[in-house]
Formats: sequence, C-alpha cells, structure tokens
Amino acid sequence: MADNVVVRNIPRTHPAVLDALAAGGTATVHEAQGRTGLLAREIRPVQSGASVAGSAVTVLTHPGDNLMIHAAIEVCGPGDVLVVATKTPNTDGMIGDLVVTSLRARGVAGIVTDAGVRDVAVIREMGFPIWTRAISAQGTVKASPGSVNVPVVCGGQLVNPGDAMVCDDDGVVCVPRERGEEVVAGVQARTANEDEKRARFEAGELGLDMYGLRAKLTELGVEYREGES
Amino acid sequence: MADNVVVRNIPRTHPAVLDALAAGGTATVHEAQGRTGLLAREIRPVQSGASVAGSAVTVLTHPGDNLMIHAAIEVCGPGDVLVVATKTPNTDGMIGDLVVTSLRARGVAGIVTDAGVRDVAVIREMGFPIWTRAISAQGTVKASPGSVNVPVVCGGQLVNPGDAMVCDDDGVVCVPRERGEEVVAGVQARTANEDEKRARFEAGELGLDMYGLRAKLTELGVEYREGES
Amino acid sequence: MADNVVVRNIPRTHPAVLDALAAGGTATVHEAQGRTGLLAREIRPVQSGASVAGSAVTVLTHPGDNLMIHAAIEVCGPGDVLVVATKTPNTDGMIGDLVVTSLRARGVAGIVTDAGVRDVAVIREMGFPIWTRAISAQGTVKASPGSVNVPVVCGGQLVNPGDAMVCDDDGVVCVPRERGEEVVAGVQARTANEDEKRARFEAGELGLDMYGLRAKLTELGVEYREGES
Amino acid sequence: MADNVVVRNIPRTHPAVLDALAAGGTATVHEAQGRTGLLAREIRPVQSGASVAGSAVTVLTHPGDNLMIHAAIEVCGPGDVLVVATKTPNTDGMIGDLVVTSLRARGVAGIVTDAGVRDVAVIREMGFPIWTRAISAQGTVKASPGSVNVPVVCGGQLVNPGDAMVCDDDGVVCVPRERGEEVVAGVQARTANEDEKRARFEAGELGLDMYGLRAKLTELGVEYREGES
Amino acid sequence: MADNVVVRNIPRTHPAVLDALAAGGTATVHEAQGRTGLLAREIRPVQSGASVAGSAVTVLTHPGDNLMIHAAIEVCGPGDVLVVATKTPNTDGMIGDLVVTSLRARGVAGIVTDAGVRDVAVIREMGFPIWTRAISAQGTVKASPGSVNVPVVCGGQLVNPGDAMVCDDDGVVCVPRERGEEVVAGVQARTANEDEKRARFEAGELGLDMYGLRAKLTELGVEYREGES
Amino acid sequence: MADNVVVRNIPRTHPAVLDALAAGGTATVHEAQGRTGLLAREIRPVQSGASVAGSAVTVLTHPGDNLMIHAAIEVCGPGDVLVVATKTPNTDGMIGDLVVTSLRARGVAGIVTDAGVRDVAVIREMGFPIWTRAISAQGTVKASPGSVNVPVVCGGQLVNPGDAMVCDDDGVVCVPRERGEEVVAGVQARTANEDEKRARFEAGELGLDMYGLRAKLTELGVEYREGES
Repeated sequence: MADNVVVRNIPRTHPAVLDALAAGGTATVHEAQGRTGLLAREIRPVQSGASVAGSAVTVLTHPGDNLMIHAAIEVCGPGDVLVVATKTPNTDGMIGDLVVTSLRARGVAGIVTDAGVRDVAVIREMGFPIWTRAISAQGTVKASPGSVNVPVVCGGQLVNPGDAMVCDDDGVVCVPRERGEEVVAGVQARTANEDEKRARFEAGELGLDMYGLRAKLTELGVEYREGES
Repeated sequence: MADNVVVRNIPRTHPAVLDALAAGGTATVHEAQGRTGLLAREIRPVQSGASVAGSAVTVLTHPGDNLMIHAAIEVCGPGDVLVVATKTPNTDGMIGDLVVTSLRARGVAGIVTDAGVRDVAVIREMGFPIWTRAISAQGTVKASPGSVNVPVVCGGQLVNPGDAMVCDDDGVVCVPRERGEEVVAGVQARTANEDEKRARFEAGELGLDMYGLRAKLTELGVEYREGES
Repeated sequence: MADNVVVRNIPRTHPAVLDALAAGGTATVHEAQGRTGLLAREIRPVQSGASVAGSAVTVLTHPGDNLMIHAAIEVCGPGDVLVVATKTPNTDGMIGDLVVTSLRARGVAGIVTDAGVRDVAVIREMGFPIWTRAISAQGTVKASPGSVNVPVVCGGQLVNPGDAMVCDDDGVVCVPRERGEEVVAGVQARTANEDEKRARFEAGELGLDMYGLRAKLTELGVEYREGES
Repeated sequence: MADNVVVRNIPRTHPAVLDALAAGGTATVHEAQGRTGLLAREIRPVQSGASVAGSAVTVLTHPGDNLMIHAAIEVCGPGDVLVVATKTPNTDGMIGDLVVTSLRARGVAGIVTDAGVRDVAVIREMGFPIWTRAISAQGTVKASPGSVNVPVVCGGQLVNPGDAMVCDDDGVVCVPRERGEEVVAGVQARTANEDEKRARFEAGELGLDMYGLRAKLTELGVEYREGES
Repeated sequence: MADNVVVRNIPRTHPAVLDALAAGGTATVHEAQGRTGLLAREIRPVQSGASVAGSAVTVLTHPGDNLMIHAAIEVCGPGDVLVVATKTPNTDGMIGDLVVTSLRARGVAGIVTDAGVRDVAVIREMGFPIWTRAISAQGTVKASPGSVNVPVVCGGQLVNPGDAMVCDDDGVVCVPRERGEEVVAGVQARTANEDEKRARFEAGELGLDMYGLRAKLTELGVEYREGES
Repeated sequence: MADNVVVRNIPRTHPAVLDALAAGGTATVHEAQGRTGLLAREIRPVQSGASVAGSAVTVLTHPGDNLMIHAAIEVCGPGDVLVVATKTPNTDGMIGDLVVTSLRARGVAGIVTDAGVRDVAVIREMGFPIWTRAISAQGTVKASPGSVNVPVVCGGQLVNPGDAMVCDDDGVVCVPRERGEEVVAGVQARTANEDEKRARFEAGELGLDMYGLRAKLTELGVEYREGES
C-alpha cells in the first residue's frame, strides 16, 4: 500500500522525446495519441506563449497544505515538470514565488497544478511557466502528510511519475512514458502533413477538396441551395 | 424544412454599416439597439484589442465535428465573420490554425464560436481574431451533417445569415441586417454625445450634475448624511 | 436604520499604511492578517501588472443600475478605491469609460466590483485599474436608490467605508481600517523574512532544510523509498 | 420590426400531436427529430414525475421584470405552455404562486422559463408543473416593456409561438409546429421498437446481439482478453 | 479586535416576530424588507417542505474544520438557527448526523451553511432541516480556531448574531434583528393583500386589470397585434 | 498497451466486504480510508435513499457514444456496479431505460457515471439506483471504440476494475479492492464508536466535553466573552 510515501528515483521520458513532443504542441500530441490524455481545459496557463514538455514529478497533497511540495522539490531534476494534485478539490494558492525560486534553482521546467498559485505578477516576471486551475492569494500551511512520485489524478487524467507533460497555450496533455516514442512518430507524421496542408490552404485550396469532403456531404444528404444575395 | 442544407448566397449587411458599427463598439451598439442582441459574456476574445464587424456566415455543426465548417469556408467572402453554433453544447477545439489559414485566404475577418478553438498560440501570431467559449486542444472529426447559412442560436442569441456581428474586447453583439442603418444612426448620436460628455467629465464635472440626478436621488428618498472623517 | 443613504465623510486608512500594504501585495497582506479578508477569487483584474491600495468608498446598487455610482463619485477623494456591491448578484457592465474618466478626474486610484464593467479596451488604454467579476457590454439604467459609504459585502467579504483595499494580479484583500498598522507590521516582518529566504532558495537550499520539515515528515509517518530510474 | 409587441392569436400545434409527443417523452422526441430542439439541461423540473406537452406562448421580458408575463396570460389558452425568455441572463424569481394561480385559472398546462421561480412549496402543493433554471425568492418589478408571442431563445433553443414544448423529468424539447406530425410518426415507430427491445432485454438478450454490435467491435479493432478473477 | 472569540449571550429576535416571519415565507419577507437580505440561491434545502425562522447563532470556521461548531452548540438555545460561514470558500461536509443529534438535543431549529453537510439520508429521516451549499461525504478535522457569535458573511449576506434567519423551499433570507417588527408589519400587509388577490386570480381576473397594467403597456409603447391562429 | 480492450474476467471485492462497506456508508468509509477515494460531489444520486456497494466494472467510452456500455454489460455479474468514464468531459444521456433493463436482467446493482443519464422517470419507477453528473435527454450513438475493465478516472478518482464502489445519498467513494478488509475494520470501529457517541449526544452531552475540546480552544487562543442578551 502506498499512502504517504516519497519515491526518490523514477524512470523519466527521454529528453529527445520531450523535445519532439514540445515541438508538436498539445493539440497535435493529443491527436497523435488517439485523443487521450488531455487534462481538463480549466487548467490554464498563467502566462502567454510558453511551451514546455518535461517528465512528471507528481505530488499528492492535502488541500490547503504545501508540505509535500517541499518534499517533491528535492527529488526534481533539470527539465522536470512538477505536477500537483490534491486529495479533494482545492483552489488555494499553494505555490508562490519562493517555491518557484526553489524549483528554478533545481532546473525545473514548469508546474501543472489542479489547485492554485499566488504571486503571479512576480512569477510572470521571472518567466517561469505555470498551468493552473486558479489564481488565488489564499496561502497554505505545512502540516499534513501526502506523497511524491505516486500515480495521481490531475485535471481528470491519470498521471504516472515520469510521464511526459506537454504544456502550451492550448492546455496540457499527458503522454504515458512508455508510449513516448510511438506518439512522437505520430506527431512528426502529422506535423509534416500539416505543413504541406498549410501551404495549400494559404494558396486558396479548400478543405472540401483537400480532404475529399464533397462526396461525404452528398452521401450524408447535405443539400446545396443557391439562396440570394 | 431546412435540415442539412448549405445556402451559397446570402444578403449581407452593407460595408458602410459594418464600419460604423465597428467604430461604435459593442457596448454602444448594444445600447443603441435597445439593449438586445448581446451574446453570452462567456464568449470571450482569444486576443486583446481586436475590433471587428462583419456579416455572419452561420454554421450549425454536430458537437465535436468540424465537417460543416469546411463547407462554410467556400461560401465565405471578404470581411465576413464565421459564426459557429453546435446542436448541443460543446467546447471542443473545432477550429485550429489550418482552418484559420483557409479562412484568412478568403479574406474572412474573424470567428465567433459557441464551441472551442485550439492552436491559439499560432493564431495569435497570425493576428486573426476569434471570440470563443473555450480554448481546448481537443480535436474533432469530419463525419456528421449540418447546415451553413441557416438561422442559428449562438451565445443564447438568434443569428441570421448576413446579420452584422460586432466584436471587441467587451464581447459580441448581433445586429439584425434589416436594422443596421437604424442602429448606426443611434450609435452615431450616442458617440457624439459621449465625446462631449467625456470632455466634461475630464474637466471635473459630475454625472450628478450632467445627468440632473440630484433631483432623482431626492425623489427616490436617498438621504445625505455628513458622517465624519 | 441605514437604507438609501449617502455618507459624505468617512475616516480613511492612513496613506503610509496604504503604501506599505501595496508594497506587500495581496498574498503577503492576507497572510499577515491571519488569512482573512480575501475577496472571492472570481474578482479578477482587467489589466495585468497593476498594484493598488486605497481606502474604500463603498456603493450598494440595485442590479443593472449605476445611479448610486454617480452619487459615490462626488464623495471620492484622491487615492480612494471605489467598491461596488449589488443587492442581488449581477454581472452587467455597470461601469464604462465615461465613469472611469470621471473617477480619474477626482484622482480615484481604482475600482473593485462584484458586478461587471464594459469598454475595457478604452479603459486599458487609459491605464485605470479595475478588479471585476465580469466583462460585459450590457449597459445599465439610472433609476433605483441605494447607498454610498455603508458597510457592504463584496466578493463574499464585509467591506466598511475607509477600509484598505489591496489589489494586484493575485486578487483583492480588504484590511479593516483599524487593523491597518498591525497588519503593516506583520507585512514588513514577512517581507524581510521572504527576501532572506529567496536568496537562500536561489542558492539552492531546500525548504525541507530551511523550514526544518524533515522531522515533521518523519513524525507524520511519510516514508522514503528509493524507487528506480 | 417587432420590438415590444403582443400578438393575440397564434397557430397552435394540434392537440392530438401534443398528446402523442407527451406519450413519447423528451428523450424519444429528441431522438425522433434528429437530436435537435433540446433546451439546456440546466432547465430542470421543480417537481418530480410531471409530463406535459403544450403549444408555446412565448414571452420576452426585461431581466427582473414580470410585466409582460401578465400581458401573456391574457392570450394563453387551455393546454398552452408559457415560455419565458429574458433579454439578458437572469435568475430572479419572476413567477410566484399568484401568477401560477392566474395561469391555472386559464387552463395553462405548465411553464418553461430561462429565468427563475419562487413560492415553490405552494406551487408544488398546487400540482402545477414548472421547468426552470433557478429557484429564487428574489422578486421582480412591473416596469419595462417586452413582447409576447414573438420568436424567443430559451435554454439556447429558438422557440416560435405555437411550437410544441415537450417537458418531463429529463428536461424540455421544442418541436417546431410544422414538424409535429412528422416527429410523432418517428416517435411512434421508436416507441413500438423500444417496447419490443425492452421485452428482449428483460429476457436477458444482450445489446451486443440485438444491435449486431459484435462485428462492429471487431471492425473497430476492439480486442477481447480473458483477464482473471 | 474580534478574532477567535466565543460570545456566550446575544440578543435574539422576539419569538412572535420569528413566528410571523416564518408564516410569511422567504419571498414575502424579502419583498417586505425592500428586497434585501437574500442569501445566495446556491444555498438550497436538503429536504422538501420545511419552513423555519430562528435567531442566528453564527460560527466562523476554518475551511475543512468543524471545531468551532462544537463551541457554538453550547451557546445555542431552543429555536435558534445555526449559521456556519467559512474563512475561505469550502464545500466539505462539516456537519453530519452526530452534530445534528447534538443540536437537536438543545432544541436548535435548523442549520444554514455556506459550506457542506454529510449523512443526509440519516438527517432527512431525523426530520432536521438544513440549508446548504453542498452535500459532500468529505469529513473535517477539529484543529483550528475561529469565532462564535460574531458578524459573518454567509451566502453573500452579512448576518449578525440574533438576526432572524427565515428559511423555506425558496431559500434563506436574513432579517436584521432591529428591523424585525417593521418587516413583520410589511409581511402581514402583503399577506392579506395576496390572499385577496389569490381569490380574484382564481376567479379568472387578470393581473393586467388587477394591477392596472394596460395603461402602463400603452405608455411604454407596447403594441397589440391580432396575429392569426 | 491497453487501448480498446475488453477484459472479460476481473478479481472482485469480496461480498462480505461489500456488505460491510454499504452498512458503513460513504462518509464513514471515506473517513476510514484516510479521507481518500471520494468522487467529485457533482456526481449525485438520481433517486433518494438508495445505498449500494458493488465491485466496479469499468467502461471508458467516447463522448456521446454508448457502444462500449453494451460491451460491458456482457461481462457484468450480479451485484456489480457499472462505472462509466468518458475520454473527454461529456454530459449526454448515455444510459436510458433500455440499458438499465439489460443491466437489471444481469443482476447489476447500480451505475456510477461521469457522463449523464436519461429516462429518469422510468428508471426511478424501476427502482434502479444511479449516481450521475447530469440528467439529459440527449441521446448517443454506437460508433466508436473504447475499453471495458481497464483503470479509469471517474469523478476525479482512479477506479480499477473490481474496486468497491460505495454509493449513497452523500455521493460515491471508491475503495481499492486490496484495501477492502482494512477499510472494513476501520469502518466497524468507527460505527461502534459513533453509536456510543450518538447516545451521549442525545442525552445532551456536548462535543466540547466528549472530545475534550475545551483545552484545545484555550490552547488555540480562543477567548470567551459573556456578551449580553
């Protein structure tokens, strides 16, 4: 049984996989893994334009208590993404600029949290990216046990330690570590395909023709009428 | 009966009317047409500072399916605003950067959607304005029939093809095509009036005096007390 | 009984106290007064990066009616924060650029509202800071009585006239006027403390060591496991 | 243009059609008309077990104002359903036991409202069925103009005067008057079909066999595994 | 300063006033005190058909902690209504069947809470009435200080100890203790008036005639059209 | 990799454990397993007074598609609880009276769903218990693959096939199968303890004395004042 444990070492997603996932972006990654793994869209970026992919170091905390976040920092490594889940729904500002300073000192790449953050003005200035359910000045205590690097549910998705968290302005997708390479292959195929399509769309070609949709519309019984201007 | 039809030609709001409505802005337009036509305030701009008015090309889609959006693009013209409604509430990212590329190639001015969009980082860079209920990486299929240029309900308002969609940082207002000139007249009267008031407010005059509200307060029984500092 | 009154003069929080609270920021102020006084986090800034602290001039209005806001402007002074509450929940755009122009002419520092605002594009350009529950083009009338400078509930918190409203990107905290100096003392102690901690975090020290949390984890029965990479 | 009008006479859905729709129930009716016409599921019954279908007498009111509801009562007839929409979203208790007494005196069958109701304890005792977005003691005034028997948007759906409103514990569906007979035919076919299926399900037959879904699962690549108990 | 205090004795609303308010019901009481004092409509009854009015014994608790509720029980008397507010929004089940058993043993009439309750099946069987924001099995601790019988904000309304809480199926209204008799007078006038109107509505008289609204409709420019059936 | 699989056989929670958990109820079970496993409180019972505990047969479906529910029925056994999760958030009425008839024919004890249900009037008459996020007449298709008896996230909690689902009027708690006996022991200890406390509360003893909280209040600095009546 795994209540209240801190696991020091975890297998991580390979850096090359992380780079390729970040290059693809959340929408393409989500598509490439069969439309699974998307965290709830209520988890939004605090900043604009950031794009990050890193291995998940997971934290399961008591609501309103950030003790276990401090325990998690010690086991984070460069490029990791800290994933904070809570035992019950909670939107307190569990993470502020001091915790971010500590995470940055260890090279952590970003935070994804099902709870809330505070000190966002300072954190934006620091340029440290966070995806969160809430911005709240509500502070927290350091009093209750929890776990680090156990499977957690964040944004309605199961996240295992070491899974790839892909985060950008569209939201956050979790890619299971063991599926990383397979998903990268799909992402790269899609990206190439999209580049080609983009050029054709720019040239004025229609999706109806590009995707062969006219026949489908007919088959589905969609009827055209001339109307009048 | 009008299930599953694409209407190619629609009457549009006159460009001069559209320009005048855009210059007025949503709050003034809404006021000038008797406080009607305002879409649900949950439909928000993806970008900051954009202001657009265009004739509505309407799409009614199956939730999670963007087939009919492709059918709509073909019948869009320069300056139009694509208005996307769904048969049941849905917040999937039905529109991404490829669809936006295609719309831009046809000169479309913007999008208003009751559903969601994805690829917002790229779309913001492209400078293409969108008002949407949701940002979501959730992709969609191209499998189900729907309609283009039929009356739709978007953001709780009835939108007819060719109506003027007025969109800015305050939200979106729909002006029925046949009311366009009447509303413009109201907008222009109000704008002139507001410019004059703005100057007086800047000079320190009070609304109590400008609008003659002191008598109204007395009549309503509002009592003044000195209090103490 | 105090229905429908306008109180002209109120005791205000001392400017030095306001400056010190603004310097502390909402999260630190909230912490320093025992985690009380935080307005609902749904009240968000319209702009980014603004930080304001001012004495509350309170308004209690009928929903959808901004008559009493005009009455309030007359009794506002330089540096005040206008606090708008409604008799029932309402998100109409009760405040637009004209009201803001009038408030600015009197030196008012900002607005906190439980209702909504409109004309946000213009207001952002003016650089006038607002914290609000909603952005909405929905206009209002000037028809119903209400009160100015009576105790109100805004964002779920009791606000008395003259209380300090501390507002930044994290939200809004209300500091009762009579507690101002006590809270400032707490804020300053915390700020000094946080500066020192920030330096240590930057140097790589862990919160586990800085706060002496390792013993606490053991006491709470949190168990460490090696795991494997 | 149709602002602020009361239309006295409207075409209504045929009583036999209404009876057949009520017998089908909202879920079957919705299915039978191609999954269209379903009002937002936030509009819920105040009571349990009621099932009503009637022709819509529509009201468009100012938020927080029930003047036009009184105007509507005069044009209601036996078996009608009063449909209340508001110019902006509003959840005040616009309808109380007095209005219900008046409606019942005219033989009205029920109410569907996008706003709110009050006095629900008395109304439940009276056995008068209501589907509403909110229960709220908040009263209203009688001060602003609006319309009766114009097209309105209620629960996100366009409702024309005389359309059939079908209401039960699952919610509310609007059937356009001119589609009534076509939908009834579909409802009756479905109901017969469902009765036969119900008997087979009761006898233990599986949907996999009844609908021939095993082949579909195979075709979709769904794989069976034995697992272990 | 009043942090963390328990006030043993409070002035209470007179029992005759409470009886008269309960007889009036929340909608009439709210109307009679000028449409003020209505708690947020999200605070709903756990049961159906209960109607209670009692003096408020207020509790201000830490979120997720019911220690102060136990402190409050000791100072409750027969007929009181326990009003539970939290320092930050929280929906945990702070009250279960044991606390209700204790309250009932002291003759408490009901509970109004801005947080949540649990064990509702048992509590419904006990017939003890509760108005709450949430039903949640989530338990709480007994660890943090708070206050009893201080002014609190509950459901967005200021509640002072001893104020009358009027609760029924429509929600909860707070009547300030010192306004009790004035509001009762208004309630009784309205109730008599409503009884007379109810009889007239039952007899088929229209609100248009009873309230003299036909002239108002004309004055507001509402136009009648015959339409056609 | 486990996309799109149906696992026929799963280990189940022992019937004696299920009986003991149902007897304890969700609030006590949740407490007894360290306040973990509680599904989101938005998942509410369709009926009143039902109490069920059964082994989870899990289904992961495409939004708006109930194909996999039919696949799941075949592998359900007597006393099981069907747990329906979706790949993205969805509130369509995926389950109606026909599916319930089929489930009942196999002896299934109840349903827990993160999506929605329809035909609730009939289902309530059948007396078949359901806990759901939504009631919606919106029907579904049978077109997309998914999985049966894989780990799923439902109501924000991880549910493994065979885990005990404990459901009553307070909501739903998931007890991991391998923790069943340990939790039952805790539940029984708590229940005995609560019975004894209930008797003491009924006799008028205070929680302050029963739990020894007076010392704690003093220690926390809570101050008593006499006040005045």
